Amino acid sequence: MTKSRLEAFSDGVIAILITIMVLEMKVPHGTDFASLRPILPVFLSYILSFIYIGIYWNNHHHMFQVVRHVRGPVLWANLHLLFWLSLIPFVTGWMGENHFQPQPVALYGVVLFCSGGAYFVLAMLLIRAQGENSTLKKALGSGTKEKISMVSYAIAIGIALFANSWVACAIYVAVALVWLVPDTRIERRIENPETKNAASE
Amino acid sequence: MTKSRLEAFSDGVIAILITIMVLEMKVPHGTDFASLRPILPVFLSYILSFIYIGIYWNNHHHMFQVVRHVRGPVLWANLHLLFWLSLIPFVTGWMGENHFQPQPVALYGVVLFCSGGAYFVLAMLLIRAQGENSTLKKALGSGTKEKISMVSYAIAIGIALFANSWVACAIYVAVALVWLVPDTRIERRIENPETKNAASE
Amino acid sequence: MTKSRLEAFSDGVIAILITIMVLEMKVPHGTDFASLRPILPVFLSYILSFIYIGIYWNNHHHMFQVVRHVRGPVLWANLHLLFWLSLIPFVTGWMGENHFQPQPVALYGVVLFCSGGAYFVLAMLLIRAQGENSTLKKALGSGTKEKISMVSYAIAIGIALFANSWVACAIYVAVALVWLVPDTRIERRIENPETKNAASE
Amino acid sequence: MTKSRLEAFSDGVIAILITIMVLEMKVPHGTDFASLRPILPVFLSYILSFIYIGIYWNNHHHMFQVVRHVRGPVLWANLHLLFWLSLIPFVTGWMGENHFQPQPVALYGVVLFCSGGAYFVLAMLLIRAQGENSTLKKALGSGTKEKISMVSYAIAIGIALFANSWVACAIYVAVALVWLVPDTRIERRIENPETKNAASE
Repeated sequence: MTKSRLEAFSDGVIAILITIMVLEMKVPHGTDFASLRPILPVFLSYILSFIYIGIYWNNHHHMFQVVRHVRGPVLWANLHLLFWLSLIPFVTGWMGENHFQPQPVALYGVVLFCSGGAYFVLAMLLIRAQGENSTLKKALGSGTKEKISMVSYAIAIGIALFANSWVACAIYVAVALVWLVPDTRIERRIENPETKNAASE
Repeated sequence: MTKSRLEAFSDGVIAILITIMVLEMKVPHGTDFASLRPILPVFLSYILSFIYIGIYWNNHHHMFQVVRHVRGPVLWANLHLLFWLSLIPFVTGWMGENHFQPQPVALYGVVLFCSGGAYFVLAMLLIRAQGENSTLKKALGSGTKEKISMVSYAIAIGIALFANSWVACAIYVAVALVWLVPDTRIERRIENPETKNAASE
Repeated sequence: MTKSRLEAFSDGVIAILITIMVLEMKVPHGTDFASLRPILPVFLSYILSFIYIGIYWNNHHHMFQVVRHVRGPVLWANLHLLFWLSLIPFVTGWMGENHFQPQPVALYGVVLFCSGGAYFVLAMLLIRAQGENSTLKKALGSGTKEKISMVSYAIAIGIALFANSWVACAIYVAVALVWLVPDTRIERRIENPETKNAASE
Repeated sequence: MTKSRLEAFSDGVIAILITIMVLEMKVPHGTDFASLRPILPVFLSYILSFIYIGIYWNNHHHMFQVVRHVRGPVLWANLHLLFWLSLIPFVTGWMGENHFQPQPVALYGVVLFCSGGAYFVLAMLLIRAQGENSTLKKALGSGTKEKISMVSYAIAIGIALFANSWVACAIYVAVALVWLVPDTRIERRIENPETKNAASE
């Protein structure tokens, strides 16, 4: 099975998700900048979600660079990831329109948590298919970054519900920033010719 | 005629369909989890349809793996399949917003039935183009799985209208689960070098 | 300049257009089949437009099969075609929601006419780039089919405005049926090895 | 890292943006041409934005022709460009629905300005990756055309806010026309075999 259609399909879904969110920003009726103010929280949550979906696309892109073949389970693990990502526009809209109230912020975290989990499952399946000595395994290591992110989301959900939803938002932003720093683990491995050979096997 | 654009176009349409459904879930005005309750049936029907469209994409992907060339009739049979799939967001929304009432559930079954029929026609056309000894013919066999699915949809439509719409929904879920089990018929054929030769002819 | 991105972009736009139309069919509030009746004209106009956009995709696909290189003017002629096609969902909705009243039906014809014209301009530009002896030139001939279609649209627009909008609709359907018959002009040329050589020059 | 997925993803996002705008044109309830009149300004702003997004796709296409490899920062610079482009449907709708009032026209200019800036940053990153002697560097020169465009947008924003919003619109149209003239800088370089060698290095 070639990976090209899986990539094309994922690109299509992610491209739609990242642009569909903009439809949540309803054009205001007023004609001055003041009429844009109610949209500001929606806009801020849009930026955050744009970055998150961008991170997923970016990592998806990197991860499949070192993948040669895909099989049934990987297709479904990928669809599972896309399912959780597809809920991001909904929770983004709910969080933004309600000015970052506790429960919408917590639900946003739940979707981030499940997306992260789905990504992790996908990565594990790909590694299992490639073997413990694969480039992917070496690049992702034990997935510390992924695990810390998911723990952070879980903490943020609790904070949103029982303490302060703005602190939870700050955690989401912080995790996004950590991922924004380019993840060079895979790039480094690809450029290292020794590991490259391992990948082409 | 190469198949790449047919695949790209189908991927595009299916990617849009699978994400457009999420737009049916209108962001609620309330700020607590209770305000999400009215959306729950829409969400459940979204999950079901997401899985169904995922199955179609998956099978489409597998089927065209073993196809080399496409011609006019195949292009139209493919568009015919996409037409029925394009109605899934509409019937999903109608079924979900009406809490799985008999007639929306029946119409959902009608669209599943027609999608299944369109897929069957497409498969037959591809087999006819490739010959009775083709990999595809050997992989799909007499299409028993496809036929049983369509009979199940027909029964479910009757049950929805004249008995209990929840039973009909259970049938839709059961059929989806049957298809979720990876269809290894084509994968097995591709890996078998003997049949592979037949495919490349 | 390679043609692959032009094809990918066109596929993307056409895939979105063909599925966006389905959003015009608003999910009805009623729970029985009777509540679907008001949507019927929208559904019928959706089918017609689905077929038309399918035809354009199909012909676009065929035409670019025999194209090797594209340049600036072709990119813009292609965007010009996509612009007119992008108006089809709007006129489809207007025509369907107003139950095929004269002026919406006429406007639908105007968009078909302009789309046809844009397609013709694109074909002429491609032929000019390839030379009078190219496969494309031989395949399209003098574009009789294209010209007759456009004259038919023009007549239908007049009929819709000054006589009977249903006759105009019948003309649109008739033209679509003529194009549904696979356009084998290009396929035949590609299979004919003599012309194939001409194409690869 | 190959550039193909970056191109595919960008094509997807741009294709969606260019077609999503059409959804801003709400189907009117009236059945005669007069009922279309309120939509006219939305339509005009749609045409302008369609051309602008077409220009960006066109230039994006040309620029990546001469790019071989992409790395993390380029992926993010590209997403940054797509972010600003993704706001075009929103500002197009706001400007059109408010009949080209000063503040919406100014905000439209802000988004054009930021899109232009993001494109410039992307181009600079690509040049830095390829070296000062690359085809891209030679083709883009010092980016005079890009800089003049951005200065024009800035002037237009001021004019819209403090003088006349129609003059600002005229400037947007004028800049678009300048870019519509095919940008042959890259095409010429590609055809020139001497520079071609430089590009393949």
